[in-house]
Amino acid sequence: MKTGRLEAFSDGVLAIIITIMVLEMKIPQGASLDTLKPLVPLFLSYVLSFFYLGIYWNNHHHLFQAANGVNGKILWANLNLLFWLSLFPFVTGWMGENNFNKNPVALYGIILLLASLAYKLLIYCILKNENKNSIVHKALKKDPKGNFSLFLYIAGIGISLYFPKVSLGIYFIVALIWLIPEKRIERIF
Amino acid sequence: MKTGRLEAFSDGVLAIIITIMVLEMKIPQGASLDTLKPLVPLFLSYVLSFFYLGIYWNNHHHLFQAANGVNGKILWANLNLLFWLSLFPFVTGWMGENNFNKNPVALYGIILLLASLAYKLLIYCILKNENKNSIVHKALKKDPKGNFSLFLYIAGIGISLYFPKVSLGIYFIVALIWLIPEKRIERIF
Amino acid sequence: MKTGRLEAFSDGVLAIIITIMVLEMKIPQGASLDTLKPLVPLFLSYVLSFFYLGIYWNNHHHLFQAANGVNGKILWANLNLLFWLSLFPFVTGWMGENNFNKNPVALYGIILLLASLAYKLLIYCILKNENKNSIVHKALKKDPKGNFSLFLYIAGIGISLYFPKVSLGIYFIVALIWLIPEKRIERIF
Amino acid sequence: MKTGRLEAFSDGVLAIIITIMVLEMKIPQGASLDTLKPLVPLFLSYVLSFFYLGIYWNNHHHLFQAANGVNGKILWANLNLLFWLSLFPFVTGWMGENNFNKNPVALYGIILLLASLAYKLLIYCILKNENKNSIVHKALKKDPKGNFSLFLYIAGIGISLYFPKVSLGIYFIVALIWLIPEKRIERIF
Repeated sequence: MKTGRLEAFSDGVLAIIITIMVLEMKIPQGASLDTLKPLVPLFLSYVLSFFYLGIYWNNHHHLFQAANGVNGKILWANLNLLFWLSLFPFVTGWMGENNFNKNPVALYGIILLLASLAYKLLIYCILKNENKNSIVHKALKKDPKGNFSLFLYIAGIGISLYFPKVSLGIYFIVALIWLIPEKRIERIF
Repeated sequence: MKTGRLEAFSDGVLAIIITIMVLEMKIPQGASLDTLKPLVPLFLSYVLSFFYLGIYWNNHHHLFQAANGVNGKILWANLNLLFWLSLFPFVTGWMGENNFNKNPVALYGIILLLASLAYKLLIYCILKNENKNSIVHKALKKDPKGNFSLFLYIAGIGISLYFPKVSLGIYFIVALIWLIPEKRIERIF
Repeated sequence: MKTGRLEAFSDGVLAIIITIMVLEMKIPQGASLDTLKPLVPLFLSYVLSFFYLGIYWNNHHHLFQAANGVNGKILWANLNLLFWLSLFPFVTGWMGENNFNKNPVALYGIILLLASLAYKLLIYCILKNENKNSIVHKALKKDPKGNFSLFLYIAGIGISLYFPKVSLGIYFIVALIWLIPEKRIERIF
Repeated sequence: MKTGRLEAFSDGVLAIIITIMVLEMKIPQGASLDTLKPLVPLFLSYVLSFFYLGIYWNNHHHLFQAANGVNGKILWANLNLLFWLSLFPFVTGWMGENNFNKNPVALYGIILLLASLAYKLLIYCILKNENKNSIVHKALKKDPKGNFSLFLYIAGIGISLYFPKVSLGIYFIVALIWLIPEKRIERIF
């Protein structure tokens, strides 16, 4: 099976998730600049989530460019990833509306963690479907950046119960780490 | 006529349905964990519907990979399927917000039933458009899984009037039955 | 310029319009069947609009399969069509929520009329871009169905001020007339 | 790397932004024509933003038809553009609901300005990725229309604090200037 339609469907879902998040920024009553103030944390949450979804789209793009095909398991691993990403608008909105209170910041981190585990599972399913000399194997067998991110997410979730704004900083740092797309794949091409 | 644009349009509609469902999970007032409790049934309903829409997408994907072309009837049978699937966000939200009360659970089952009849009709229109030796004919002429699902949906709808949570279990079981995509088509390829 | 990306963008917009209309059917408070009753006119409006958008998608699909290319004017004529179609969720919701009151029924007809004029303009721009022996010219130079629809829309708008439900019947009849996709194009192929 | 999937993703995001804007036009209570009156400024804002997003889509379409490939920087410059465009529904709604009050009109101009700077940055990243004799270089090295627009946006933002409706006129004029797609690229092809 070709990767084309899976990529198209994933692009569609990611494009919609990234765009409907903005609907959580409800238009304020009144035209004074003060009415925009309560939206600032919501806007920052939106920036962070837009960033993350952009990273997922970029890496997904690279991953399936390297993959040679899909099977049933890859289809479901991909849907599993899309499921966790689809919860971004909800956790983004909850975190932004509560001005980075500890519970929403922790939940945001948990969703980041689950999405990143889902991405690891997707890579694993693709690796099992390719032969040992494939590009994907050479590029993705070791995943130091992925593992380090998992560690930082877990740290961020733990810290959020005491210093939620520190966790927020950690989530931003992980995003910066991933800003550069899968150089591993580009290098081997 | 080629299947390409029909697949692209269907992917678009399915991607949007699967994603806007999450908008029914309204962001709660307040940041305490208690505010999330009333969302649990909504979340479970969302998981179930995400699952079903994933199954429809997977099987639709397989079906049109096997089909050689489309005609006017297939276009309309496909739109008919998309129509019933487009009601998923509504029935999912109604069921979740009423904590699996009997009426919404019954309506959810009715929509599942109608969507699955629409899928059967789509297969029928495709079969009529292909010759007797085509892959689709070999793979899909008999449809035991489809027929069994219809039976379970009807059972689920009936039971929902007395034990709606049992019906919910039945709907989950049907989803599990379909978890594996059209092996019939893969086998013949 | 190829037609590919214009088709993809139009498919995206049409898929989203057809799907977000369902968001106008707000989930009712409470689980009794009575709470669904006020939604019946909204559901009927949704069916009618889904039908129309399906027709537009089908005919758009056929039209661009016959067209050989696009130019700047075609791009803008296409965006003009999408603009009027994008107002469907609004007029559908207003008509459904007011139980087919005369004003919303008239406005619905006006949008139908403007969308169909936009479609005629799009055909005109495509015809000007093709040579006289092209498929599109043979198939679409005369447009009896289009002209008859315009007449019926205008009749529907006029009648709506006195008998809005008659107008609704007229809108359904036009949809039925268009149910069959551009046979003219298929015949010449 | 090919431009295909970047174009598909951008088309998806643009299609969603252009369509969800219409959701800001909330369906009024009641069926009298008076209930539509407060929607007039919202409708005008919607027309203006639909226009702008159509222009961005058209020019984006032309730009990537001329470009030979994408790299990581282009991916991020493109996401940056999509980010600013994703704020259109918010600023459109705020401006329309406040009947073209000065603050929302200024913010609308600021988003127009930032989106246009993001577009300039995207062109810059593409130019750096192509060789000096490429079509893109010949067509886009000089950007008089882009620079003139920047000047008009800044003028519009400044004027909005005193005469917001004049600014609105300026924004419409810029849109008209851009109505014609990148002739520069078509000419060189």
